[in-house]
Amino acid sequence: MHERLYEFSAAKTGAWRVVSMASVIGESLPGASALDIQPASIDAAKSGATWSLRGIRSNERYVEAAERADLAKVQAELGRSDATSACLIPIRKSQAWWALAQDERRAIMEEKSHHIAIGARYLPAVARRLYHSRDLLEPFDFLTWFEFAPEHTSAFDDLLARMRDTLEWRYVDREVEIRVEQAG
Amino acid sequence: MHERLYEFSAAKTGAWRVVSMASVIGESLPGASALDIQPASIDAAKSGATWSLRGIRSNERYVEAAERADLAKVQAELGRSDATSACLIPIRKSQAWWALAQDERRAIMEEKSHHIAIGARYLPAVARRLYHSRDLLEPFDFLTWFEFAPEHTSAFDDLLARMRDTLEWRYVDREVEIRVEQAG
Repeated sequence: MHERLYEFSAAKTGAWRVVSMASVIGESLPGASALDIQPASIDAAKSGATWSLRGIRSNERYVEAAERADLAKVQAELGRSDATSACLIPIRKSQAWWALAQDERRAIMEEKSHHIAIGARYLPAVARRLYHSRDLLEPFDFLTWFEFAPEHTSAFDDLLARMRDTLEWRYVDREVEIRVEQAG
Repeated sequence: MHERLYEFSAAKTGAWRVVSMASVIGESLPGASALDIQPASIDAAKSGATWSLRGIRSNERYVEAAERADLAKVQAELGRSDATSACLIPIRKSQAWWALAQDERRAIMEEKSHHIAIGARYLPAVARRLYHSRDLLEPFDFLTWFEFAPEHTSAFDDLLARMRDTLEWRYVDREVEIRVEQAG
């Protein structure tokens, strides 16, 4: 067990009930009625669930020091008692994205797409956590987990719409949206 | 099997005979008489060797487009028939390094330490390949594999001395140097 690595799996019951699952770009995932989230071990085989996705918390790849200082002012923690709505969004980016140099990816992501700035605009209402999956040889490159109070659902919808309208998103070749709510 | 992920293991015999093993910073690794290098599977337990280290080839994290274009002009492939000397250098960086933002790490690495520029100066004599290990929850963060002809050993020694004299290297808290040569 290591607290950086997590496995998100299709389940029948669990703390997070699946409200909807939809493919945004490319192939979807098989349906599930609940989402199970557990710390995982790198050497162990995955659970036998219909699908399971692993991701690891890692160092920042694009955020600069000044941006991080700004984010810290509005940052929201996961696990807030009123944040009973959540969403898991697995994303894969294209080969063309990964072939770009660091400055080219940064320019598309922030200078042209304002990824960090858009996310910050929805803080602290929508808390986020990014898990990296590509170097775990997973089917997706990233898993992003969002938590928010139900009254901020439309703000979350706006956030997704803005992100998907960016130049960066033209490099996304698979995206699934899994909305969940805390089981009562 | 996936060609991005490799496992480097202590062995009794094999294609690469160990010439020397030394700790540069921090704890060493147990001795080995040969080094075995195999493609690895992410879900499988590691081999039962005295030690084995996994690393994955990944996208560039710091190299910018202009630097990459310059590197391409002098780049050297692995596997050259005269490159019968090689070296595996596992490195771990400190928590302080990983806590830095992207621009801070880039500034230390290249603007202050000239990591990319120094490496380029020894191309094509010394070919390199970087494997990432940190997000595989390995004991080291990186494995770098170097290949060169025996007559370029002193050039390789110079390269290591220059890298270890940089500001970036103050963030290295464990480093082991494993020199090998092709078994006859």
